[in-house]
Amino acid sequence: MANKVKAVLIGGTGYGGSEILRRLLFHPHVEVVRITSVDNVGKKVGDVHFNLAGLTELTFQEMPAAQAVAGADVAFLAMPHKTTAKVVLDIINSGVRIVDLSGDFRLRDAAAYAKYYGVEHPAPQMLSDGAFTYGMPELNREAIRKARYIASPGCFATTIALGLMPLARAGLLSGPIHTVAATGSSGSGANPQITTHHPLRASNLRTYKPLEHQHIPEILQSLRIAGAHPETSLEFVPVSAPLPRGIFATSFAEVPASTTQEQLTAAWKSAYGSEPFIRVISGGRQPEVIGVSGSNYVEVGFTLGPVTGATRRVVCFSALDNLVKGGAGQSIQSFNIMMGFDERLTLAEPGLWP
Amino acid sequence: MANKVKAVLIGGTGYGGSEILRRLLFHPHVEVVRITSVDNVGKKVGDVHFNLAGLTELTFQEMPAAQAVAGADVAFLAMPHKTTAKVVLDIINSGVRIVDLSGDFRLRDAAAYAKYYGVEHPAPQMLSDGAFTYGMPELNREAIRKARYIASPGCFATTIALGLMPLARAGLLSGPIHTVAATGSSGSGANPQITTHHPLRASNLRTYKPLEHQHIPEILQSLRIAGAHPETSLEFVPVSAPLPRGIFATSFAEVPASTTQEQLTAAWKSAYGSEPFIRVISGGRQPEVIGVSGSNYVEVGFTLGPVTGATRRVVCFSALDNLVKGGAGQSIQSFNIMMGFDERLTLAEPGLWP
Amino acid sequence: MANKVKAVLIGGTGYGGSEILRRLLFHPHVEVVRITSVDNVGKKVGDVHFNLAGLTELTFQEMPAAQAVAGADVAFLAMPHKTTAKVVLDIINSGVRIVDLSGDFRLRDAAAYAKYYGVEHPAPQMLSDGAFTYGMPELNREAIRKARYIASPGCFATTIALGLMPLARAGLLSGPIHTVAATGSSGSGANPQITTHHPLRASNLRTYKPLEHQHIPEILQSLRIAGAHPETSLEFVPVSAPLPRGIFATSFAEVPASTTQEQLTAAWKSAYGSEPFIRVISGGRQPEVIGVSGSNYVEVGFTLGPVTGATRRVVCFSALDNLVKGGAGQSIQSFNIMMGFDERLTLAEPGLWP
Amino acid sequence: MANKVKAVLIGGTGYGGSEILRRLLFHPHVEVVRITSVDNVGKKVGDVHFNLAGLTELTFQEMPAAQAVAGADVAFLAMPHKTTAKVVLDIINSGVRIVDLSGDFRLRDAAAYAKYYGVEHPAPQMLSDGAFTYGMPELNREAIRKARYIASPGCFATTIALGLMPLARAGLLSGPIHTVAATGSSGSGANPQITTHHPLRASNLRTYKPLEHQHIPEILQSLRIAGAHPETSLEFVPVSAPLPRGIFATSFAEVPASTTQEQLTAAWKSAYGSEPFIRVISGGRQPEVIGVSGSNYVEVGFTLGPVTGATRRVVCFSALDNLVKGGAGQSIQSFNIMMGFDERLTLAEPGLWP
Repeated sequence: MANKVKAVLIGGTGYGGSEILRRLLFHPHVEVVRITSVDNVGKKVGDVHFNLAGLTELTFQEMPAAQAVAGADVAFLAMPHKTTAKVVLDIINSGVRIVDLSGDFRLRDAAAYAKYYGVEHPAPQMLSDGAFTYGMPELNREAIRKARYIASPGCFATTIALGLMPLARAGLLSGPIHTVAATGSSGSGANPQITTHHPLRASNLRTYKPLEHQHIPEILQSLRIAGAHPETSLEFVPVSAPLPRGIFATSFAEVPASTTQEQLTAAWKSAYGSEPFIRVISGGRQPEVIGVSGSNYVEVGFTLGPVTGATRRVVCFSALDNLVKGGAGQSIQSFNIMMGFDERLTLAEPGLWP
Repeated sequence: MANKVKAVLIGGTGYGGSEILRRLLFHPHVEVVRITSVDNVGKKVGDVHFNLAGLTELTFQEMPAAQAVAGADVAFLAMPHKTTAKVVLDIINSGVRIVDLSGDFRLRDAAAYAKYYGVEHPAPQMLSDGAFTYGMPELNREAIRKARYIASPGCFATTIALGLMPLARAGLLSGPIHTVAATGSSGSGANPQITTHHPLRASNLRTYKPLEHQHIPEILQSLRIAGAHPETSLEFVPVSAPLPRGIFATSFAEVPASTTQEQLTAAWKSAYGSEPFIRVISGGRQPEVIGVSGSNYVEVGFTLGPVTGATRRVVCFSALDNLVKGGAGQSIQSFNIMMGFDERLTLAEPGLWP
Repeated sequence: MANKVKAVLIGGTGYGGSEILRRLLFHPHVEVVRITSVDNVGKKVGDVHFNLAGLTELTFQEMPAAQAVAGADVAFLAMPHKTTAKVVLDIINSGVRIVDLSGDFRLRDAAAYAKYYGVEHPAPQMLSDGAFTYGMPELNREAIRKARYIASPGCFATTIALGLMPLARAGLLSGPIHTVAATGSSGSGANPQITTHHPLRASNLRTYKPLEHQHIPEILQSLRIAGAHPETSLEFVPVSAPLPRGIFATSFAEVPASTTQEQLTAAWKSAYGSEPFIRVISGGRQPEVIGVSGSNYVEVGFTLGPVTGATRRVVCFSALDNLVKGGAGQSIQSFNIMMGFDERLTLAEPGLWP
Repeated sequence: MANKVKAVLIGGTGYGGSEILRRLLFHPHVEVVRITSVDNVGKKVGDVHFNLAGLTELTFQEMPAAQAVAGADVAFLAMPHKTTAKVVLDIINSGVRIVDLSGDFRLRDAAAYAKYYGVEHPAPQMLSDGAFTYGMPELNREAIRKARYIASPGCFATTIALGLMPLARAGLLSGPIHTVAATGSSGSGANPQITTHHPLRASNLRTYKPLEHQHIPEILQSLRIAGAHPETSLEFVPVSAPLPRGIFATSFAEVPASTTQEQLTAAWKSAYGSEPFIRVISGGRQPEVIGVSGSNYVEVGFTLGPVTGATRRVVCFSALDNLVKGGAGQSIQSFNIMMGFDERLTLAEPGLWP
């Protein structure tokens, strides 16, 4: 095992941590040396995540993060926000690389963090300084290559930003965006709640946090970096849907009235032509979850709508797996890039059909 | 059984027909005298719709519509569009009252029919003359009371129009509306298709007919009658979701920038305060399918969004059961009104929980 | 409202309580005067069970049971076992009739109670004395007619006993029975648990308490009363299935080798020919959940298997809704009988299709 | 690509063919050179199986099998029974190795084939001669190593046989076995049918072919080879459950009355201690689908039941993914063994969680 990257996973009992392990345990250049958690301490990984039974002898250990990262090359953080920020402050000077799946270091704007996460950030300077690099390869692959600290994007944020990014890249995006995105229940995490109670979830559709979801500033930040007009705004309605995995987003966007189908086709091709995980859907079909569920792939597409005055509507669709490209998979993609590996390592396999 | 209304059901093997029977067989003032179909001819109703086993001795009969309605007071039509228009022409002069669940007589504008249904209407004059009364009690109860021919609204059309109607009634609705509505699989009917194949449907989310769904002109027609500005437009994206029953709609609408929460609360109360099947949801919760599934009830609600220039956004939510209030249930509600019965007959019972 | 039966519901926030209310609120001879609970105290019923919004102004009240039943004619108890037994002791001398949905007063054998429920019964004499009448109309309708205290059967117990009862009634049942019954998630109650967490439940099948489920003695008690040989035994494996409502049971039973198809057809007809809620399925189809879900109806059927020595196998199938005929619905059926009402009151309507 | 095994897939549009491709396209020693089908001819693989979009340029071709296998080293056959037998006769002398997923060459007894498949086998001599080797590595790995023609086991057959095999291997299995196994909807194939129509499947449980399923003789054949008493019999009830993937089997078996827990623990360990894909579950948990869904792994376990006369009951549980270990995955496992590769190639990865 010499020369392998030594990885530690902080917070291993959630679905994000589980998905990271599902990949890292089979990564040719990685050795997972330690997994910490506050739940299930002492249990074998396979006794909590049944799919991993027999694939590792590691157990969940409870220990301070600073101790956990000793000797490790990289720490994957799979914890809730707020908790994560404190842990990062404990290990930021230890020399370990960090790949963080929480929302704590994604934003550059501490005021937006305070507004949408409901607490003041404990280290706002780290946000404005960009201490962490936003881990969306399609947005900033080169920055990731040079990074030591990665803030891996949120699930809705990835779906919606990737759906609209070609418009931003082409300089066509401005004005208000209206988005509805429906998500599977695994996005709510591994702890049972009334909103994931099977009898109520299995035949239900409902919204939560409409116009208030914490991914709103994250999406706008990405789109502006990609080229959206600074005054682009986003009204986002999340919907809880009765499936375990997957997000499907519909975004109504405004482009100049003169925009043509050809122009948009070129914009999507230009944005994603060489991206290994983005599938631009055309030819009558539109993106759907079933084609990407369980995998790191994303389906994106659009429909050109009517002209209203000086603007024309484009409806952008995008679909991905919230735990893979919307979470653990993307974090490993960025990790691969940061380490100089082929970014597809452990991620190239397709999802299930059906 | 003297004095009971004699009802015939034309097209009884689909889910609409089944739901009509589930109600009419228990209606205190109705006797179902005949059920026709082209499938399952000769079978007992309970051998096709298992839930009705033992509750009626009727069988499916194949016969011309003109013959089927002989001696009947009312014909419920539960057939596909195009087929229905032909049947109506065969029975329109027979004196029988008609309650039609298809889309063939809902629109007043024959050009819109041709555009969205893909065929010329065989009797366009009947559309422009308003031969059929649009059977949405919340929109035009008095007209229904005087009607003999009812065109019962579509499932998406009911959900979306009821979600937005308070804004229209209050004179606040204009400009483009952006709607995403997710629907259960029963909306696709009783015939197996690839889009309702369980392995692909159970864990999927996808769109179909985005911006092209045939309910678009129906919704606009209703909203304009209710008071929406004539130039109000609608961009609608339907989404297929993995549940059997229910529709959840999210509509982004524009109102004047000065509009307040109090004004909207009053608008919803004014529109629906005395409606027996509309539940205005407030107090932190938003509409969801689970509360209305299996019943004729509708949940509606809204969230007030940001001001952009001269306009302010309101996001309207609505949820109902596509086969009941979005189909058969509403058709019976209108039938009850037309016949002078209590409109809640057979419809007052709540849905299941959970 | 004079002359109506005054009913109080003790424990109204669970799914059993909710289903009782769904029926009793529409019962022509009942007035629900009070609902108690320990959760959601002070909330309106419709703010907890969304389907009941607007249908009652009652709120959940916390008060001692003895106080709650004051002035009431009947108390429906919808609480967990153990808790229930204590409440019953508090109200048993108050004169109020009791319909109990828990397992605390179903068994006659206190030792079996202690073994399967894991605690000594606080009033074992009440069990052996038969203070409560077992509320399964198909088994003992006449006893229910004379009862004042009803112990309503369990969901698995109802499904399995009704599936096998024709064999017992015909004197054909003896030897070991092997049963697998799969249940929907609502059977686990309204409180979120890991076994009802949507991401894990939605695509899973698993067993729990195999050979140890507390309904085993209840089923044997019923079958022996119906005529099964005293040494009949039952090995029962419950399975958790990914649907909200319904139980489907498969029971392998032994009958004499000489038993014929005609004999069995006659046995099922004899047992259930006049039962209002039992549908004997034949003609190539077998029972399934979809035909009875949401209703008080039961589908039963059988397949005759091979001869092995002196015995022949019969495989019995049965399907019902765990919350209706397997719970609240059956409790109201027994209540109707006890009060001298038509036993079908509020229960005659079919379930949904689909 | 020199030195790679050239594989052709005959019948590539079903779920079995899709799952084979999902693996073979990433197999380090295999090149898929051709895919035939009768549906979707000319389409790209990724336009039918959306998960494979972009991963291969192959299209579905229609051509005679004899032509399709020209130049290939191995043909994977993923077609219905009956059709398959004819194709095999066309290519059996071509020199190509065959891995067949159908039921046409699994049985040694042509009479059993005729009885359970409803047709005479076109080449009964091939059955009795054992022209094909039954591809269940846990049963006959050494025979597979020497084979050129593999008949890959059925999904129910694999689940049930693997659940009971330790008893057979230990010489403990005799008498009648009673099995109920619930399956996901993908087992019914890619063509929409009424039994996989989402509205009816999503909330249903039902049986089909009770006591008559064609996997019965296949299971008995395996168990007898493993050491079951020749008079062991099987009564099997399949159940359709509302999930896309997975089978959960419960088998009631008889062992000598003296059998102990320790003896059985040893039997399971002895049977499966070195098997790469079998997980023996103990310690209070029992097998469940969620731990193996999407993977080639199997969970097996048991509960010791009561003594009845000279026998004692053991209830055996087993769970797997019907399309992977119950289908395509197992066929590749056998292929790997036959070719002298590590049998885990492309199969070692765990399934999803959740």
